[in-house]
Amino acid sequence: MRTLVTLTTDFGTRDTYVAQLKGVLYALGPRDLELVDLTHEIGAQQVMEAALFVRAAWPRFPPKTLHLVVVDPGVGSARRGLACAHGGQYWIGPDNGVMSLLMDGTTRAVSLVPERFVVGPVSATFHGRDVFVPAAARLAMGAALETLGDAAFEPVRLSWPVPQVSSSELQGTVLHIDRFGNVISNISRAEIEAWQPTSVWPRLRVRVGSAPWLPLVRCYADVPEGSGAALLGSSDWLEVAVNCGDAAQQFGAVAGGRVQLCALPAGG
Amino acid sequence: MRTLVTLTTDFGTRDTYVAQLKGVLYALGPRDLELVDLTHEIGAQQVMEAALFVRAAWPRFPPKTLHLVVVDPGVGSARRGLACAHGGQYWIGPDNGVMSLLMDGTTRAVSLVPERFVVGPVSATFHGRDVFVPAAARLAMGAALETLGDAAFEPVRLSWPVPQVSSSELQGTVLHIDRFGNVISNISRAEIEAWQPTSVWPRLRVRVGSAPWLPLVRCYADVPEGSGAALLGSSDWLEVAVNCGDAAQQFGAVAGGRVQLCALPAGG
Amino acid sequence: MRTLVTLTTDFGTRDTYVAQLKGVLYALGPRDLELVDLTHEIGAQQVMEAALFVRAAWPRFPPKTLHLVVVDPGVGSARRGLACAHGGQYWIGPDNGVMSLLMDGTTRAVSLVPERFVVGPVSATFHGRDVFVPAAARLAMGAALETLGDAAFEPVRLSWPVPQVSSSELQGTVLHIDRFGNVISNISRAEIEAWQPTSVWPRLRVRVGSAPWLPLVRCYADVPEGSGAALLGSSDWLEVAVNCGDAAQQFGAVAGGRVQLCALPAGG
Repeated sequence: MRTLVTLTTDFGTRDTYVAQLKGVLYALGPRDLELVDLTHEIGAQQVMEAALFVRAAWPRFPPKTLHLVVVDPGVGSARRGLACAHGGQYWIGPDNGVMSLLMDGTTRAVSLVPERFVVGPVSATFHGRDVFVPAAARLAMGAALETLGDAAFEPVRLSWPVPQVSSSELQGTVLHIDRFGNVISNISRAEIEAWQPTSVWPRLRVRVGSAPWLPLVRCYADVPEGSGAALLGSSDWLEVAVNCGDAAQQFGAVAGGRVQLCALPAGG
Repeated sequence: MRTLVTLTTDFGTRDTYVAQLKGVLYALGPRDLELVDLTHEIGAQQVMEAALFVRAAWPRFPPKTLHLVVVDPGVGSARRGLACAHGGQYWIGPDNGVMSLLMDGTTRAVSLVPERFVVGPVSATFHGRDVFVPAAARLAMGAALETLGDAAFEPVRLSWPVPQVSSSELQGTVLHIDRFGNVISNISRAEIEAWQPTSVWPRLRVRVGSAPWLPLVRCYADVPEGSGAALLGSSDWLEVAVNCGDAAQQFGAVAGGRVQLCALPAGG
Repeated sequence: MRTLVTLTTDFGTRDTYVAQLKGVLYALGPRDLELVDLTHEIGAQQVMEAALFVRAAWPRFPPKTLHLVVVDPGVGSARRGLACAHGGQYWIGPDNGVMSLLMDGTTRAVSLVPERFVVGPVSATFHGRDVFVPAAARLAMGAALETLGDAAFEPVRLSWPVPQVSSSELQGTVLHIDRFGNVISNISRAEIEAWQPTSVWPRLRVRVGSAPWLPLVRCYADVPEGSGAALLGSSDWLEVAVNCGDAAQQFGAVAGGRVQLCALPAGG
């Protein structure tokens, strides 16, 4: 297995910033380094969006993958850098919450001490290149996580919106609109299962905002082209979609909006 | 030679879907795997566009390259998956026509039988990750095409628009507008050669829609900056271009529009 | 160290042009080839923008990196191709100035003689694929620069705008607006140091166009969110930024616009 390093930034792909990260990674990293662009299109300074993406993608990567996350509006200020190990993989980035949605009691985290690994001058505006990449290269060369810093004290945590459950309704929030216009919520398959037995699922109805109620189906093609439906997406989150269409546009959905789930009466 | 796998999708590069494909490919594929993004900007669910891109790019890749094509509006429905071998290279994707523009009598094709290679749960909405990638990884590890499924029965074929020829005119269709605004038609160098001897080519004129007739030149710089011309592009398709400008905008060309070729009288 | 080749083009990532470059590079290049997208979003035919990007990124790459630069409005005309060696790295592209901002008395340059390395037919519109890639592959396989052509005679040079200095003012030009809306000028740290001792820097004020005068700070977070400031960016160019905002939009800055630097009176 080669040494995989993924990159998640808000740099876009037009400027040279991503290339600069990669150049330094190749200069300092191991010979078998393999870089994967996770995305460079996080909204500028959108730490929460980065945190969601980081959480969504990592389970698909092989053990020991190292994820570099550079969405860093506080660069140059007193905010610390963070490296953590979780589920056999690694993350490095600013301590501003970008990794916090995957951290739990099993996560090991250190607060970076740049003096221990930085190899050149450190700019005030690009710690991704000057601090996080050297740390990543060190880790990729086989150094132990603990050599990069001191035990992290209260890393920044972002709050994940929790769906509200009542006997009549499960209510959640729109987390993300994807490229297809699919409206992805914070309601997981496990939460629906805990709320209603699967025998009731054919009677479940879903709506986003004040749009019409939609049935819960298995795949996009279960409804005619242009029709809306709800389904459990590929990461087991409830989403609202339109077969061959754009659900966000059709139903006026926006990130942060409301998603509701209710059950029709039996035999109704 | 390493094991090259290209990726063609309509996922865009903002979401984590491409990264999820890559993560699973690295987890399941050979150690010398090399991934190449062909494009992730196929229009959402635009199967014909994907088919054109697949046909345009493959001749440049080395033998044994494997191309993964995930433009899949019918995901989760009864549509089958397809793997094929053609010209010493391989393709894997949905059986919806995305590979059909390169298939001919020499193509070997199998209809995927996921039970033979799938390694985990299969979602209803992301067969790219859960079915096609495991098939690709198997092929990349050296398995024979035929181990992935059964002989394909009548794979879906897309119809390629055929230029119309008369003694006075060759008429075709705009297939694609590229980033520069170049207007690429379905008229090939071979078709022009079959219609008129090259001695007549200096008298050929081309127009798109009802725009002015343009001369056939050799390269963009053969006309002044801002002027239009027709030429045979880098894949030997007739295209209409503006030197340092945007021909589609200047001539109001759109995909599907008409392209005409005629010959001025000799000595005129 | 593997053989690193970076790609800088104005092709965008939607069409198949970049993939065609890569396919041929893999077909002709060494087994340990590693490709890095520097950017494919240079404005169409914007040679000066490409030259600026080429100059900004290369110092971060390891020795022997080869940079392929394909922004080539004159393709197919009499313009020559160029290969050069500078600072232990290599560049290949059209002789239209794209490499000229890094060339100095230490640069070795040859004018490409395609007959010496081209392996197939050469199209009139895509020398990136048909000429520059075969040259790059040859260099990547270990050939000496001088085998690719003859000593270059007067390669095309682009003129770099030079800041104007007076006792009261340092005046420069906006070179680039980045993805964040940061306004990057042609005034370097060294030029400011030569103009005013660092003891005066706390009294320096900067403005872009006719926008308000801004203080010179160290990092974005030194001013409140939404406030503007000037700082020395990660490549030591003076830039105007807004903390968590878009300075270009807020201050109406455009590439080519004026940037001024002056000093408040001491004790004022």
